[in-house]
Amino acid sequence: MRAVDIIQKKRDGGELSREEISFLIQGYSKGEVPDYQLAAWAMAVYFQGMNARETGDLTMEMAMSGDQVDLSPIAGIKVDKHSTGGVGDKTTVVLAPLVASAGVPVAKMSGRGLGHTGGTLDKLESITGFSIEMDRERFFDQVGEIGAAVIGQSGNITPADKKLYALRDVTATVESIPLIASSVMSKKIAAGADAIVLDVKTGSGAFMKTLDDSIALAQAMVDIGTHLGRNTVAIISDMDQPLGYGIGNALEIKEGIETLKGHGPKDLQEVCLILGSQMLVLGGKAKDEAEARSILMTHIEDGTALEKFKQIVSAQGGDVSQIDDPEKLPAAKRFIEVKAKTKGFIEGIQAEEIGIAAMLLGAGRETKESVIDLAVGIQLSKKVGDAVEIGDTLAVLHINDASDKKVEEAEGKVLEAYRITSESVPPLPLVFALVTKDGVTRY
Amino acid sequence: MRAVDIIQKKRDGGELSREEISFLIQGYSKGEVPDYQLAAWAMAVYFQGMNARETGDLTMEMAMSGDQVDLSPIAGIKVDKHSTGGVGDKTTVVLAPLVASAGVPVAKMSGRGLGHTGGTLDKLESITGFSIEMDRERFFDQVGEIGAAVIGQSGNITPADKKLYALRDVTATVESIPLIASSVMSKKIAAGADAIVLDVKTGSGAFMKTLDDSIALAQAMVDIGTHLGRNTVAIISDMDQPLGYGIGNALEIKEGIETLKGHGPKDLQEVCLILGSQMLVLGGKAKDEAEARSILMTHIEDGTALEKFKQIVSAQGGDVSQIDDPEKLPAAKRFIEVKAKTKGFIEGIQAEEIGIAAMLLGAGRETKESVIDLAVGIQLSKKVGDAVEIGDTLAVLHINDASDKKVEEAEGKVLEAYRITSESVPPLPLVFALVTKDGVTRY
Repeated sequence: MRAVDIIQKKRDGGELSREEISFLIQGYSKGEVPDYQLAAWAMAVYFQGMNARETGDLTMEMAMSGDQVDLSPIAGIKVDKHSTGGVGDKTTVVLAPLVASAGVPVAKMSGRGLGHTGGTLDKLESITGFSIEMDRERFFDQVGEIGAAVIGQSGNITPADKKLYALRDVTATVESIPLIASSVMSKKIAAGADAIVLDVKTGSGAFMKTLDDSIALAQAMVDIGTHLGRNTVAIISDMDQPLGYGIGNALEIKEGIETLKGHGPKDLQEVCLILGSQMLVLGGKAKDEAEARSILMTHIEDGTALEKFKQIVSAQGGDVSQIDDPEKLPAAKRFIEVKAKTKGFIEGIQAEEIGIAAMLLGAGRETKESVIDLAVGIQLSKKVGDAVEIGDTLAVLHINDASDKKVEEAEGKVLEAYRITSESVPPLPLVFALVTKDGVTRY
Repeated sequence: MRAVDIIQKKRDGGELSREEISFLIQGYSKGEVPDYQLAAWAMAVYFQGMNARETGDLTMEMAMSGDQVDLSPIAGIKVDKHSTGGVGDKTTVVLAPLVASAGVPVAKMSGRGLGHTGGTLDKLESITGFSIEMDRERFFDQVGEIGAAVIGQSGNITPADKKLYALRDVTATVESIPLIASSVMSKKIAAGADAIVLDVKTGSGAFMKTLDDSIALAQAMVDIGTHLGRNTVAIISDMDQPLGYGIGNALEIKEGIETLKGHGPKDLQEVCLILGSQMLVLGGKAKDEAEARSILMTHIEDGTALEKFKQIVSAQGGDVSQIDDPEKLPAAKRFIEVKAKTKGFIEGIQAEEIGIAAMLLGAGRETKESVIDLAVGIQLSKKVGDAVEIGDTLAVLHINDASDKKVEEAEGKVLEAYRITSESVPPLPLVFALVTKDGVTRY
């Protein structure tokens, strides 16, 4: 078998066999197939695509390229959740305790943020003392005892995906649905998920700008799950504005706590209930979405969801008093209000610009080496549909050590992110579609 | 400027600027832009193409990546000729003396053969003593004194093209018209040509299998020449069978000598007259093709073309007595006749298979390191249109040291190469089209 023949086959629109995909991916992982051949292949895939069988095989080969976590010591159906990257998306912070309180085991490996999107690990670390590092045994024990644990990825998970992703990033081959879908799914498979709930963001702030592209990506991932025997469903949710009001690590934990108490922003609560319902159904704890939603609402209203969050924080060394009194969480020293310069109605909020503004203030990493400030960020005051007068506060910057230049830049970006129109704007739909192995339901 | 942005622009169908092409090619040549980015870019070019301006700029950047030969010390218009690779193509051996005898200076840098196509240098070296190495000064002096010299490429000509070609070879990006065209033309430009005559082969034995593809390649090369201020014309000639009857170095020299005497195979003579006429017109030695053809015929008939060949051989150290008596050229020791197993008419002769058979006998190089045997090869006995009876000799293998296994394999390939049909076959057209900056003339 020769890599050049496999590249040519894909270039000419052929379907690659499992053996051919394995030859490329394992060879690349071991350094036997060079970068330049994978780069040419990825570009050929960009133009020619891959079918569901090829994409499933690619996913499995990447999952098999490194460690595969065996979650079988944990009883029950392990349902993982993944969002394709959003701004202000703190759903994992809410969902881990919420679905655990309903009996679905949560053995979650999360990531850190890079660029304009945040990471669950960074958010949780804004709780003083919270540790995301523990060995496999303690991880399993914690999930067994309290039903949930959230840790960082350890070991050598999907090294082929990491290597290929880094290569795609510098060869303009990121934007390929089979390559994006297999990258996401390989990590979930390697992390031991029995079932997977996906939240594919759509809109100006998402990787996928159009609903059709987002549905296509969701379908590709659901197809992979089906091909590999993992029950998988996906929702398509809005990212034409950030989710909730808080962007920045401690600000997002605060909002997560409010949501667990039943007082969170409506959009965040609704997305959490939809994703959580799917997780309960796949986890076998509810017969349908309606029942699942009612179970979740009960756990919010009777305080068991918040109690579960406190158990997780306590088990992982965090300061529980900060959950009881979120004012004790790290806070910024300085605040600047960004004020509207036009009168009208908020039509959209460019989530990516808001994410970048928060990063400039220190809430996110510009490079992998950047040190982040857990207290800073942006608190939105207005969201889509809201009416504004000139001089009304649109958002508040929470600032610590950012230079004047960066603050000014962040302020400009926030102002730019708000699109204001003279006509009244209906509220944005929150979830556009549900994608399952049986097809697409548009709302 | 970042390579990834340039790749993405081409991927999305954009037109690259001269600066962007220069950044990629000079960067690649210097090792500042890595293989994997060029590989992804080449695949994007495969799918999205390049326009005439981009292709011209790419050609010039590759020509400028190394030494550029300055032929200005030689008086007159220096017309170079290039064939896109054929089997049995000994036109350079005939044309160098033929057009030099008509006053067009020939300062020719030729290549060696690899795989199933032969190289002019190898062919000339079958004349005992013939040297293809000389310094620039002697090269210019010889062209000044006798009007022609044929040497090997020396110095560092188009290193970016060499590096890119090697990369394309292993990344399935060879078959791209703008990349093929710029590769050929960059070498001609760097070698100092004022004007260029191209012979693009078409048919089963050619790189371009269809007439449309061959015309597209010819047009791309003529466009480059026009863009770079070099008068360029191309003919599209047949490669549905080898050119002439001899394949193998000494066998081809013999046939070249016969052609210079006016007794060569009709197809070879005709292609030489067509190419030579174009060279005379571009070189300013004839006002049109008709006049040029008449001049060339005169030089063949009065013996001055053959005399010019003897001058070149003598000046480059070769044994002139071998030109007077070609039986003195290196000859094989053993001969095997390949006989027809069916009765009928020759419909086609797969030139590539014949070339590979000759290579197996030792006439060509399987790898760059192979040592070739100048005496061996294949002498065809039948060509397209000929009638054959069972047992008639189709071709004769000229053998020295090839193993029985290789001889058997070569015999099988020759037999396979001949397509025999029961119905009579009209002779193949020799030249299908002429491509100039003014357009395409189909014959």
